[in-house]
Amino acid sequence: MVGKEIYDFTCRLFPINRYLMGEGVRKTLLSIKEIIPEMQICEVPSGTKVFDWTVPLEWKVREAYIENERKERIIDFKKNNLHVVAYSNAIDEWMPLKKLKEYIHTDKEHADSVPYVTSYYNDHIGMCMSERQLNALPEGNYHLYIDSEKVKGSLTYGEIIFKGDTDDELLFHSVICHPSLANDELSGVTLAAFLAREIREMRGHRYTYRFVFVPETIGAITYLAKNLFYLKEHVKAGYILSCEGDNRAYSYLATIKGNSLADRMAIKVLSELHSDYTKYSFLDRGSDERQYNSVGIDIPVCLVCRSKAGEFPEYHTSNDNLDFVCPEGFQGSFEVFMSIIKLFEKNRSYRTKVLCEPQLGRRGLYSNVSFSGSKTPYKVIVDFLAYANGDNDLIAISDILDVPWERLNEIAEILLEQNLIEEM
Amino acid sequence: MVGKEIYDFTCRLFPINRYLMGEGVRKTLLSIKEIIPEMQICEVPSGTKVFDWTVPLEWKVREAYIENERKERIIDFKKNNLHVVAYSNAIDEWMPLKKLKEYIHTDKEHADSVPYVTSYYNDHIGMCMSERQLNALPEGNYHLYIDSEKVKGSLTYGEIIFKGDTDDELLFHSVICHPSLANDELSGVTLAAFLAREIREMRGHRYTYRFVFVPETIGAITYLAKNLFYLKEHVKAGYILSCEGDNRAYSYLATIKGNSLADRMAIKVLSELHSDYTKYSFLDRGSDERQYNSVGIDIPVCLVCRSKAGEFPEYHTSNDNLDFVCPEGFQGSFEVFMSIIKLFEKNRSYRTKVLCEPQLGRRGLYSNVSFSGSKTPYKVIVDFLAYANGDNDLIAISDILDVPWERLNEIAEILLEQNLIEEM
Amino acid sequence: MVGKEIYDFTCRLFPINRYLMGEGVRKTLLSIKEIIPEMQICEVPSGTKVFDWTVPLEWKVREAYIENERKERIIDFKKNNLHVVAYSNAIDEWMPLKKLKEYIHTDKEHADSVPYVTSYYNDHIGMCMSERQLNALPEGNYHLYIDSEKVKGSLTYGEIIFKGDTDDELLFHSVICHPSLANDELSGVTLAAFLAREIREMRGHRYTYRFVFVPETIGAITYLAKNLFYLKEHVKAGYILSCEGDNRAYSYLATIKGNSLADRMAIKVLSELHSDYTKYSFLDRGSDERQYNSVGIDIPVCLVCRSKAGEFPEYHTSNDNLDFVCPEGFQGSFEVFMSIIKLFEKNRSYRTKVLCEPQLGRRGLYSNVSFSGSKTPYKVIVDFLAYANGDNDLIAISDILDVPWERLNEIAEILLEQNLIEEM
Repeated sequence: MVGKEIYDFTCRLFPINRYLMGEGVRKTLLSIKEIIPEMQICEVPSGTKVFDWTVPLEWKVREAYIENERKERIIDFKKNNLHVVAYSNAIDEWMPLKKLKEYIHTDKEHADSVPYVTSYYNDHIGMCMSERQLNALPEGNYHLYIDSEKVKGSLTYGEIIFKGDTDDELLFHSVICHPSLANDELSGVTLAAFLAREIREMRGHRYTYRFVFVPETIGAITYLAKNLFYLKEHVKAGYILSCEGDNRAYSYLATIKGNSLADRMAIKVLSELHSDYTKYSFLDRGSDERQYNSVGIDIPVCLVCRSKAGEFPEYHTSNDNLDFVCPEGFQGSFEVFMSIIKLFEKNRSYRTKVLCEPQLGRRGLYSNVSFSGSKTPYKVIVDFLAYANGDNDLIAISDILDVPWERLNEIAEILLEQNLIEEM
Repeated sequence: MVGKEIYDFTCRLFPINRYLMGEGVRKTLLSIKEIIPEMQICEVPSGTKVFDWTVPLEWKVREAYIENERKERIIDFKKNNLHVVAYSNAIDEWMPLKKLKEYIHTDKEHADSVPYVTSYYNDHIGMCMSERQLNALPEGNYHLYIDSEKVKGSLTYGEIIFKGDTDDELLFHSVICHPSLANDELSGVTLAAFLAREIREMRGHRYTYRFVFVPETIGAITYLAKNLFYLKEHVKAGYILSCEGDNRAYSYLATIKGNSLADRMAIKVLSELHSDYTKYSFLDRGSDERQYNSVGIDIPVCLVCRSKAGEFPEYHTSNDNLDFVCPEGFQGSFEVFMSIIKLFEKNRSYRTKVLCEPQLGRRGLYSNVSFSGSKTPYKVIVDFLAYANGDNDLIAISDILDVPWERLNEIAEILLEQNLIEEM
Repeated sequence: MVGKEIYDFTCRLFPINRYLMGEGVRKTLLSIKEIIPEMQICEVPSGTKVFDWTVPLEWKVREAYIENERKERIIDFKKNNLHVVAYSNAIDEWMPLKKLKEYIHTDKEHADSVPYVTSYYNDHIGMCMSERQLNALPEGNYHLYIDSEKVKGSLTYGEIIFKGDTDDELLFHSVICHPSLANDELSGVTLAAFLAREIREMRGHRYTYRFVFVPETIGAITYLAKNLFYLKEHVKAGYILSCEGDNRAYSYLATIKGNSLADRMAIKVLSELHSDYTKYSFLDRGSDERQYNSVGIDIPVCLVCRSKAGEFPEYHTSNDNLDFVCPEGFQGSFEVFMSIIKLFEKNRSYRTKVLCEPQLGRRGLYSNVSFSGSKTPYKVIVDFLAYANGDNDLIAISDILDVPWERLNEIAEILLEQNLIEEM
C-alpha cells in the first residue's frame, strides 16, 4: 500500500528542523530527490526582490532552552523544535519568572500542547511551551538561552517537471517551511513525492505535470515572480497539497472563481469517491492558493485535502504529530489525486459525428430484440451521443446524466473506435 | 365533440396489422387521406441509405399461431396481432413445451396481458402470450407456425403541409408502425388527422403547418435525411404526438435544451390549462424527439401528451386497447394542441411606441375617477406597456405578470389599434 | 434632530390646498425655496403637449360644502380639503338625500375617514365624506354647493441642482399635488427639502444632485419631456420620495430591471441598517417610478420609503394626517437616504496593483508575530485585495465578504494611500 510508504517517508522527514529558509529545507529536498532524482533544487539569494517582497535572511539556531536555578532544562528545542519561535533573535539572560513569561507563547485553548509560532519579518525573542507547563513553573530565576542568528543565504525550493505530449500543465504545490508538524504541512510534501513517483512511472501522458516544493508565502511568491508568464499560459489547473495524512474527513476549498477546471475536477472526483466531503469557500483559504488566485496572477489553484488547516484541534500545535497521520489517511489522499490525474488525462469534449441516432444494433451496442424496459443498459450510450455536442466535456455529461465519468470515458472509447464521435 | 370523432376514427384504424413497413402502414395512411385529401404518400425503397441506417425489407405475415396436439389453436395472430413478434422469421415445427418456451415472450410484471415485441433488425423467431397462459400450458407437443417473409418493398410515410403567410413552420410528428396498440401510438396519428382538418378549415394563418406520419425511428431518420436543410431552416417548433387518448394525466417532455419556443409554448399552455401536468426531462425521452434533438439536427421538438409512454402499466401490452382511450381523453389533447397553435399564431414581441405612460383615460382605457383600489382592472394594460420593450414576447410578459397569454393578446390588439405599441 | 425639523416643516405645509396645478403648488414651492433659495420654479402653460399628454387647466376652488335644510354645513372643504373631489366642476343645487348620494364618495373599508378622490381628466361633480357620516344623514333636502372653475394657467414644478465634480447625477423626485395628506405624499417633499439642505452644506461632492418637485404623473411626464436626453445621459440612479414620515416599516420597490445601481444601493443600505425591510416588485409600483422606468425612458429610479403607498390603512384617507407621521419616522428616512448618498459618493471599483499578496507586515497592516487565529483582524484587508479585481465595486465586495461597505471604504482609503490599489 502506497499509503504506508508515504507514512514511513513522513516519519523520516518529521524530525528535521525546517524553518522558512536554511538547512532544514535543503535536507528535506535532498530526501525527496532520493525518490525523484529529476528534481531541480534552486536557490534564490537573500535580498532578491520578488513582487512586493524581499527574500529574507536565513535563520540558524544552535541551542534554545530555558533552565531553572538547578540547571534543569525546563524546555529544550532539541527535544521539540516547536519550543523556539521560528526566526527568534538570540538571548542569554537570567530573569525572574514574571519577566520570563513575557517571552513565552502558549495556546490556552489547547493547554497541553506546544503552539507553533513564527516571526519571520519582525525582530522578536520568544519560546513556546504548553499553558499547563507554564502555569506549573515555581517562582525563581530562569535562564533563557537562544543561540541563533540571521545570515545572508538563500531561499531554497524544489521543482519537478514531467513533460507530457502537450505543454498544458497540472500543478501540485506543497510547502516545506514548517518544523515538526505532520499533517499541516509535511503530509502534503510526502504525498507530492509519491504522486510524482507514480507519474514518472506512467508509460505516457498527454499533459505535463509540475510539482513545486517551496516555503509558504515567500516561496510561492518567489516561484511565481520567476515563472509567471509561463505558468499563466500553461497551467490549466492546480492543487495545494497539505493536510493529506489524517483519516477524518475529505475537504475541498474552491478557487476564487469557483468554476475553473481545477474546481470541476475536484468536485467530480470527490462527489464520486467521498460524497460526504466538506466544501469550503475561497474566503476560508489559508495557504498558497492565496497567491495563485490573486489579481493579475489568476491561476486556478484550489485545495483538496483531508481535514482542512485550521479546522482540526491539533492544527499548529505539538499534537499535529506522527500519531495524527496514518497510512490509511495518506492512501485516501493518494487515490483522490490519482483520480484527478486520470480525469485530467481523460477529460475532453467529443462531438457525435453521425446525424440522427446511429444504428447501434448492427454494431452490437443495442439489444436486438426490443421490448419494454429492455433499453436500460444501452440508455447511457444513447444519452452520451445526445449530449456529445462538442461543448460538453466528460465532466459536464457526467453531471447531466448522473453517471460516473469513468463509465462515460469507457463509452467514449468504444464510440471513438466505432467512428461515431470525434474529439474536439 | 371532436374527441368523439377522433375516438371513432381510432376504433376504425385499431385492427389494422401495422408493422414497420408494408400494407398496414399504407392502409392507415389511405384512411387518413380520406379526411385530409391533401396528404402526400411517399415511398422510399428498401436498401436506401439514410444517414447511418438502411431502409429495411418489408415484412408480410399471413398466418401465425400455436396449436396443441388436439389441433386447438392456443394463440392466433388473427385474434390479436400482438401474438407474433414483429418481423419474426417463418417456422413450421412441432416441438415439446420446453422447447416451445424458448420462442415465447411474456411480460411477468403484467401477467395477464400480451406484450408487444419487435425484432426489426435481427433474425429472430418469436411469439407473445400472457405469462398466465404460458404457465397454464400442459406438457405435450405444440405446433409453432409462422408463415411470414421479408421482401424488398418500401418505407411508406405521409406528409401534409398547409402553407401559411410565412415559411416559418410548426411541425406535428406521429408514428404509424405499431399494430393494435391504442394509446401508444395510434392516438397520436388520429389526433394529428383531426388537428390537420382543423387547420385546413382555418380562414388564414400566419405560419405553415406540417404533419408527418412515419414509422418510428427509421421513418423519422428517413424523413430527416430527405428534408434536413429545409426543416432546419424553417421549423420553429415541433411536437411528437403519441399517447394522446387516455384520460389520466397531462405530460410534457422537454427538448434537449429545455428552453426552446416548443418548450415555452408547451409550458405556457399546460400551466394555464392543466397546471398539475407532469414535467419530464429529455433524459426520459423515447420516441422520435430523439432524432429531432440529436447533434447536428438540432430541431426543437418536444412531447405533449396525456400519460407518457412507459409511465402507464398498459404500455406496450394488449391492455393498451380501445378501452384505455376515450373521447374525453382525445378532447383534452385536441384542446391543448389547438391552444398551442393559437399561441404560435398570436405570440410575438411588441414595443411600446409612446414615451412615458400614455394617457389611457382619453382612450377609454382608464377609469376617469381615480381613487384607492380603482386601478386594478386597468393595471394589466399599464403593466403590459411597461414590459413591452421589444424583447419580451407574449409568453415572457405572461410569465412576468402572471396573466393568461390570451388576455395579453386581447390587450395587445387594443393597443395596436390605438397605435400605442408596434409589432417587432 | 433633523427629523423634528422635517416634521415641523411638514406641519407648516400640511394645510395648503394643493391640487394638481395652481396656487397650492406654488405656495408649497415658495416655502421650500425659503430653505433652498437655489430652487428654480418653472411654469409650463396649460395646453402644452408633453409626449402623449397635454398640460391641463388649473383648478380653483373657493367654496365647497353641503348644508341641510337648517343651513347647517354637514361638510365643508374649509375644514378638510379632502371633502371636495379634486378638479370637480361647480354646482349649486338643492336636492333630496337620495340624489345627493350620487355625488358622494365614501370609503366603506375605512368607514370613519374621508377618502381622497380626484378627477383630473374627466368632467365630474363630487364631494367626499366618511361612510359613517353619510349613513347617519336623515332624509330631507340638502344644498350641494361647489364654487370652482378650471382656467388656463400653468403647471408648476421646482428643480434644485447641486453641481458636483462630475456630471453624473443622483436624482430625488417628490410629488406636490396632494392636498392635506401627510405621509403620502407631503412627507417626501419635506424630506427632499432637508436632504437638499444637507447636500448644499457638504464641502464638496463628486456627483451632481438633482431634486425634482412635480405634480404626480403629468408633472413627471412634463419634466421628462423637457429634459429627457440630458437625464438619460447623466442620471445614474434615482429615488422617488414619498411616504417617508411614518414609523412602522422600511420598504423598497425595485426598478423594472431590479439590478440597477439604484437598486443595489438601496438594498445594500437597507440590508445593513434595517435588515427587516420589505421588498416590493416593480409590479407593485404606483408613483412616478412608472414614468422613469418606462420603455424608451429607461432611467433607473426606484422607491425607498417607510410604509409603502397602498400598504397602510390610512393611505388616501383623512387618517393620513399629522398624527400618522412623526419626527422619528422622518429621522429614519433621512438617515437611510444620507447613507445612500454617502454610498453613491464612495462606491467605486478598485484593482489591486501588486502581483500576489502584498507584504502587509512592513506597512503595519499585519500582526508581525503570526500564530493560529491571529490573522482574523487583518483578514478583511487580504480579502479586499483578493476581490478588488477592477470589476467588483464596494457593493459587490461587501456582498461577497459580508462586511459593511463603510468598513471596506475605510480599507480602500488605507490601501489607496499605500499605493496597493488603484481606482478604476
